[in-house]
Amino acid sequence: MKIYTLEDGCDFDSLQPSVRPDPEPGPREVLLRLRAVSLNYRDLAILRGTYGNFPRPLVPVSDGVGEVVAVGAEVRRFKVGDRVVPAYVPDWVRGGPTAETSRRRLGGPLDGLLREYACVHEDAAIAAPAHLTDAEAATLPIAGVTAWHALFTQGRVGPGDTVVVQGTGGVSLYALQLARLAGARVIVTSRSGDKLARAVALGAAHGIHTREHPDWAARVLLLTGGRGADHVLDVVGGEGVERSIEATRVGGTVSLVGFLESMTVRFDLRRALQKVVRLQAISTGSRDDLESLGRALAEYGARPVVDRIFPFNEARAAFEYLSSGAQFGKVVIALP
Amino acid sequence: MKIYTLEDGCDFDSLQPSVRPDPEPGPREVLLRLRAVSLNYRDLAILRGTYGNFPRPLVPVSDGVGEVVAVGAEVRRFKVGDRVVPAYVPDWVRGGPTAETSRRRLGGPLDGLLREYACVHEDAAIAAPAHLTDAEAATLPIAGVTAWHALFTQGRVGPGDTVVVQGTGGVSLYALQLARLAGARVIVTSRSGDKLARAVALGAAHGIHTREHPDWAARVLLLTGGRGADHVLDVVGGEGVERSIEATRVGGTVSLVGFLESMTVRFDLRRALQKVVRLQAISTGSRDDLESLGRALAEYGARPVVDRIFPFNEARAAFEYLSSGAQFGKVVIALP
Amino acid sequence: MKIYTLEDGCDFDSLQPSVRPDPEPGPREVLLRLRAVSLNYRDLAILRGTYGNFPRPLVPVSDGVGEVVAVGAEVRRFKVGDRVVPAYVPDWVRGGPTAETSRRRLGGPLDGLLREYACVHEDAAIAAPAHLTDAEAATLPIAGVTAWHALFTQGRVGPGDTVVVQGTGGVSLYALQLARLAGARVIVTSRSGDKLARAVALGAAHGIHTREHPDWAARVLLLTGGRGADHVLDVVGGEGVERSIEATRVGGTVSLVGFLESMTVRFDLRRALQKVVRLQAISTGSRDDLESLGRALAEYGARPVVDRIFPFNEARAAFEYLSSGAQFGKVVIALP
Amino acid sequence: MKIYTLEDGCDFDSLQPSVRPDPEPGPREVLLRLRAVSLNYRDLAILRGTYGNFPRPLVPVSDGVGEVVAVGAEVRRFKVGDRVVPAYVPDWVRGGPTAETSRRRLGGPLDGLLREYACVHEDAAIAAPAHLTDAEAATLPIAGVTAWHALFTQGRVGPGDTVVVQGTGGVSLYALQLARLAGARVIVTSRSGDKLARAVALGAAHGIHTREHPDWAARVLLLTGGRGADHVLDVVGGEGVERSIEATRVGGTVSLVGFLESMTVRFDLRRALQKVVRLQAISTGSRDDLESLGRALAEYGARPVVDRIFPFNEARAAFEYLSSGAQFGKVVIALP
Repeated sequence: MKIYTLEDGCDFDSLQPSVRPDPEPGPREVLLRLRAVSLNYRDLAILRGTYGNFPRPLVPVSDGVGEVVAVGAEVRRFKVGDRVVPAYVPDWVRGGPTAETSRRRLGGPLDGLLREYACVHEDAAIAAPAHLTDAEAATLPIAGVTAWHALFTQGRVGPGDTVVVQGTGGVSLYALQLARLAGARVIVTSRSGDKLARAVALGAAHGIHTREHPDWAARVLLLTGGRGADHVLDVVGGEGVERSIEATRVGGTVSLVGFLESMTVRFDLRRALQKVVRLQAISTGSRDDLESLGRALAEYGARPVVDRIFPFNEARAAFEYLSSGAQFGKVVIALP
Repeated sequence: MKIYTLEDGCDFDSLQPSVRPDPEPGPREVLLRLRAVSLNYRDLAILRGTYGNFPRPLVPVSDGVGEVVAVGAEVRRFKVGDRVVPAYVPDWVRGGPTAETSRRRLGGPLDGLLREYACVHEDAAIAAPAHLTDAEAATLPIAGVTAWHALFTQGRVGPGDTVVVQGTGGVSLYALQLARLAGARVIVTSRSGDKLARAVALGAAHGIHTREHPDWAARVLLLTGGRGADHVLDVVGGEGVERSIEATRVGGTVSLVGFLESMTVRFDLRRALQKVVRLQAISTGSRDDLESLGRALAEYGARPVVDRIFPFNEARAAFEYLSSGAQFGKVVIALP
Repeated sequence: MKIYTLEDGCDFDSLQPSVRPDPEPGPREVLLRLRAVSLNYRDLAILRGTYGNFPRPLVPVSDGVGEVVAVGAEVRRFKVGDRVVPAYVPDWVRGGPTAETSRRRLGGPLDGLLREYACVHEDAAIAAPAHLTDAEAATLPIAGVTAWHALFTQGRVGPGDTVVVQGTGGVSLYALQLARLAGARVIVTSRSGDKLARAVALGAAHGIHTREHPDWAARVLLLTGGRGADHVLDVVGGEGVERSIEATRVGGTVSLVGFLESMTVRFDLRRALQKVVRLQAISTGSRDDLESLGRALAEYGARPVVDRIFPFNEARAAFEYLSSGAQFGKVVIALP
Repeated sequence: MKIYTLEDGCDFDSLQPSVRPDPEPGPREVLLRLRAVSLNYRDLAILRGTYGNFPRPLVPVSDGVGEVVAVGAEVRRFKVGDRVVPAYVPDWVRGGPTAETSRRRLGGPLDGLLREYACVHEDAAIAAPAHLTDAEAATLPIAGVTAWHALFTQGRVGPGDTVVVQGTGGVSLYALQLARLAGARVIVTSRSGDKLARAVALGAAHGIHTREHPDWAARVLLLTGGRGADHVLDVVGGEGVERSIEATRVGGTVSLVGFLESMTVRFDLRRALQKVVRLQAISTGSRDDLESLGRALAEYGARPVVDRIFPFNEARAAFEYLSSGAQFGKVVIALP
């Protein structure tokens, strides 16, 4: 089968097409013919060597969707022809995170999905929601599950709550759509007026232009009558976390999901104590989260936002495009 | 001021117009000029003497909305001119139910709101959602809060869940609308095809006609691919609870909120154990629930369903109409 | 290897010694040489044919402990020589109950542990707490996990709470000891003054003799200053559930774990609504519950109560003794 | 009545004895004759002007116990002769923290309890646990409630969990004792071998001498077999929070309760994400927490640790002693 691997190096040249024998499913595995994969910043960071430091050659990319073309003898959850989305953390089937279940992850240290065929354990995958295209379904595992786990598994976002999402990256757009499905009011921050307009078109109640309003937290307080947001999804990290705390209501929650600004979080503890805030680190979620996410999208016919689809033989261009930051929504690679 | 009281007797003749001196607010009370009240079956049962056995004369009716016309010296939450909805259980401000906070209730043993003026403690009321008419706002306290507390305070209904509501009474219609706001799929049961059609128009995914499908639980299993509902709101009680358990998924919840069929619940414990079901008795909720409910409706511009509005001097006709069971939505009495 | 099987029939004659080939572990399985098993009423009910109706011949008994004598090629959690307790529901590793994970259970429909050797999946077992004897460790899976799941996974029993346990069966004694470890006050009911005295010696604050006080709920209210118990563990079922509800505080929980009196639960819904009670059906728990239970017992050096140990070749006598109801604590069968 | 007030200045001279008229209770208030008060670092920081900047003169000290000597006309919870502990945050009766209920606090901005008489609202106080001395009961409100709220209201510490407490200040010693009551294993850190020995005598399983083991987090991992603690109570703040995160298990909780080291929290977000940690800011708790705390201590006859009791006329010496940091347990001032 055709595959891509990350070879030595930390630039786009390290991504190389290659060939490997077709895999064969174990007794409880299904063999997938991949149809589409979607990229996350994690994939880019692994390519650049700034994340994880996994042994190479490594097949990159954690998220995708494929069709079952063969099943192991004991498989009960799927049959040939099913369209299936593998879970990013195959050992995390349900319940909370544990040390035991979070080490093995697709796209590093385990081989990822940028290849024609892959075997996955039947317990580590879900049926793709029928209403989604391949490109859309391929975006569920990291971005969708992270938003779901933050808002609904660790959090309790519901009708009438106010949720702040930062920027318009994959997790943030999912959080916008999911919070909206759950009856919450969503405020989006961005440095781009154009992206804000698109976020509002997706259902956000307010967009805060952070160039015009660098003190976006004050603006959130204004938009909530001084009360503050119930839940802030922080993808920025660094000193921005203090602003997320400021934007939160007393007793509210800040989900820590990313570090676009800096890995070193810093905030004034007095402010955290005044807000009696909960800071909850989030690192994706379980297969059950993935399944609940799929069910919720299906119920409403909701669709993740796909920005652009690249063909398999232009995988490198997809990585380069992701690295440009120009996209609004997910970058996808379609397999032939 | 003009009032109605329940005098001796247990038929509609016991409801009599009368006159009392205007009340004056204590230091932390607001004086309301009532604008509308809404009826609940509880009010009817108290009139008939089948519930509560409260000393008479008693001013009936627990739910309503009024305008603040005077405030006590220490009041901070409201000012003259505010439109305010009193909480049905004035001592239950927040948190879970306790013996201490649930004895005093409007409409019995405390005097209710079927009168021109009433004083309420500022902590025992909320600002009426601005988008609601008086008639709509008057329906929040019992029906709305019960549905809210069942689904979101005790329960965790969210996107993609399936919720079953029985019939089209006040609590059930609120539950339908709120579950829908929260992203859930709603299945409604009723003996009336017409009412089912109206429930579907309100957002229910499926209506089950219980004359055509007396085994409605089997139908719920069918509609959920054998999985069962995440949450069933049981307003029937009696032996119907066993069917609610059957309709529930493993690990699901049945909220026990009413006893239209019978006060004596009966079910096979083996079935409850197979389903590992949670049966949660619900008896309205706190002022914080009322406030959250108002905020959620406002966010979406959602409106409770009002069937018919009677003038104050036809209060008896309103009780009689409620007792007919013909209504779809709430029965309201408007004050002049 | 030597085994026992249930053959046709529904009396003690159906339990027959037999011989089977030694099993061999799969890649993620461990081969255990059993050291002790413990009996539950479930085992007796299966023998009598009143529970489950599983195909025979069936190796009975779900709970036990063994020594690892061989491991599959991929096993990481255990090594030869470890002492291991298999989980009663092998597919329920963590999280809440689901339809998918609760069908396969040891002792029926899966073969149980009344045999010299058995293979178990490494994820479906825990290391036996080091301080426990074989007989003690063999009692953890059903009785211990059920009590743990009721009090701590579904419930939140903690310091200062009052817990009522009914009788002195396996689950009740575990609940007594665990609630005590958690800082709760325990009230035990029993028809036997002698068993009450032993329960008090184990840490119960009060024993209620149900022959002297048939209205034991009133007595619980008295002992809690009118407040009621925070948590009642109901093993009786039937109409006794109403008394459990009466004994509970407003907002409290009744765990439904058994049906010694009757399978048909019956109670007055008005009482449930007054108490805003939660009735939670409990059907054992996950492997994570089993692991937490073992850790908690180890921390305190706490020991389950073993009444009597029978040798392997007197397994029938052990079943007969369990059926007599004379025991205080668990009945165990030791393997040679 | 005799009182102390904080006058201008930010040293011990600002604490001055004075005289005021005796207060009279409002309709729902009780008049207390104070018997003992206990000091917290907050009181010291307010005296020094480094916390809160409250208008002076201000009666300092938030925590105390008194005897009811008169009751308002509508008081139902207490009667003359009851021994009563006022809640530190009088408007926070139950439920979670909100902006509305957390502004008014005893000892600043509200007048505190360093005086002979004080009036408190009956809903803002509890009956003192009967087994405690006046000095012991006076220590419940801030230190005890903070530990309770962190471990049991926001957290779910239970049997077999491992809890780390830092140092031997008031909150930490309460946390040690309460975690122990709840069946948890406690690890204490301190720079003093003597204090560690006393903590172990109180029930700690391990003491970590932070001069010998500056990397105390590594030691916690060692003592938990690499798993990490379930709950760390962080009273240090600053960069120490990163070590608290390191010491925590995957999915564990760090309670942020103090800032002895620095107000500026700093940590590496990658570590937080690896641990999927919850950082929960804690700012005391509700009157219901206070009541639960009292009930739990009473059930076990547990006693808070009082280091030293000063007479009322030596209040200044008590503040000076607290500021020395030499104490192990609470510093109390007894009234005549």
